[in-house]
Amino acid sequence: MGPEELTEFLDDVFPQIKGQMLIEAVGPMSARLRMPVGEQHLRPGGTVSGPSMFTLADCAFYVAILAQIGREALTVTTSATINFLRKPAAADLVCEARILKLGRALVVGDATILQEGQSGPVAHATMTYSIPPRR
Amino acid sequence: MGPEELTEFLDDVFPQIKGQMLIEAVGPMSARLRMPVGEQHLRPGGTVSGPSMFTLADCAFYVAILAQIGREALTVTTSATINFLRKPAAADLVCEARILKLGRALVVGDATILQEGQSGPVAHATMTYSIPPRR
Amino acid sequence: MGPEELTEFLDDVFPQIKGQMLIEAVGPMSARLRMPVGEQHLRPGGTVSGPSMFTLADCAFYVAILAQIGREALTVTTSATINFLRKPAAADLVCEARILKLGRALVVGDATILQEGQSGPVAHATMTYSIPPRR
Amino acid sequence: MGPEELTEFLDDVFPQIKGQMLIEAVGPMSARLRMPVGEQHLRPGGTVSGPSMFTLADCAFYVAILAQIGREALTVTTSATINFLRKPAAADLVCEARILKLGRALVVGDATILQEGQSGPVAHATMTYSIPPRR
Repeated sequence: MGPEELTEFLDDVFPQIKGQMLIEAVGPMSARLRMPVGEQHLRPGGTVSGPSMFTLADCAFYVAILAQIGREALTVTTSATINFLRKPAAADLVCEARILKLGRALVVGDATILQEGQSGPVAHATMTYSIPPRR
Repeated sequence: MGPEELTEFLDDVFPQIKGQMLIEAVGPMSARLRMPVGEQHLRPGGTVSGPSMFTLADCAFYVAILAQIGREALTVTTSATINFLRKPAAADLVCEARILKLGRALVVGDATILQEGQSGPVAHATMTYSIPPRR
Repeated sequence: MGPEELTEFLDDVFPQIKGQMLIEAVGPMSARLRMPVGEQHLRPGGTVSGPSMFTLADCAFYVAILAQIGREALTVTTSATINFLRKPAAADLVCEARILKLGRALVVGDATILQEGQSGPVAHATMTYSIPPRR
Repeated sequence: MGPEELTEFLDDVFPQIKGQMLIEAVGPMSARLRMPVGEQHLRPGGTVSGPSMFTLADCAFYVAILAQIGREALTVTTSATINFLRKPAAADLVCEARILKLGRALVVGDATILQEGQSGPVAHATMTYSIPPRR
């Protein structure tokens, strides 16, 4: 699936995040998403909240997996570790997700969150997803 | 600060989460929060989304810290690891946060998310927060 | 299996760690191990090295699982997160491992490392193990 | 500091790991180490043990930091997350450590463990180190 087909699929099965993120690119074992940051994503200090960045990383990795394995909406996160590295400004964030291991039952990879004008990544996450067994 | 004072403080400095979580109890080095789960917290499969549970764990730990150190809104998460253990139903979640180490600059602890009717915790997180230096 | 039977089993299948740790107790979904600390466990600063504490946490959780599921030596760690909380002295460490979720394929839990004379835990780990499928 | 100077420094301040790992290269914000795998690194199943890989990742990241900041032996790990992706054979492992954020007090980065003949990384870790304050 490409960005458009993935966007349609997500809008259908996961309406809760509709319009919150743009799928910019998908490649072999990777995906890039953009999150336009608004007032609702901020936390005290005027910076983007941790949960907003977690949501972006989680979705980007979900998209990278779906692009590989197809319409498996029930693929779920089993664990995630996120490090917040630099305080982002209240502006767009871009997330690059990368699959390091695509197993039959588990998928492991990482996601790097970037923002224009920063000297390095603003956050880095490693994530594990579980793929439901084929019927 | 007790639950009421903490709720007022959060409503003031962090209006983005107003009304989303109830501070049920705070104790020495601990806090318990409840999240009434609605349609907006769900993901494909009708279960609570990972980012919703991350948000709950993050806030519960933030509250446990504020209850100890006072009005330091700029205290921020530096890293978090979350394990999703059981698929929760679309119903209330309760989170118990516990501080394991309250240092001058870093606070480390964990948060356990529970749901009535489940045979064990639905998620478990460990978190590190950074406290801004005193002026 | 109890502490003695587990010790014999480990000495047999995992001779690399023989004599390095004492199994003090096993309970339902838990285990407690002691590591007598020697020169070989230290790092610059005269404190116990991170990898030594990781080894202790990993073994304690392995023992807690074996006590539940029996002689499954090929049960392996799939992921672990460890937070180092206080610098331990060059003295015995005790680790308490606890299973939070015993699934068919994955086991998740945590391990807390303690040392007499410290004001709180010296390290805390969360771990996931994979159980090989039954033949 | 380059590989030879770093090796000498480590042999001096951290004799416990002397001869266990070879510093192959250091670059800006990065380091590559090789661990010749022997009987003592194995676990049940004839594969390299998790703690052995943790030790390699931890040392590689330590070396990457020392190469940047100089002779600060008391720089210590504060947290680490490691994912084990593929079972390595009983053969040499290579670890590439990379610094993502070099702050004044905290350094965050990741380490990827590779083995010739494998279809992808055998392990991936993210680590945080604390740098002691300058006197």
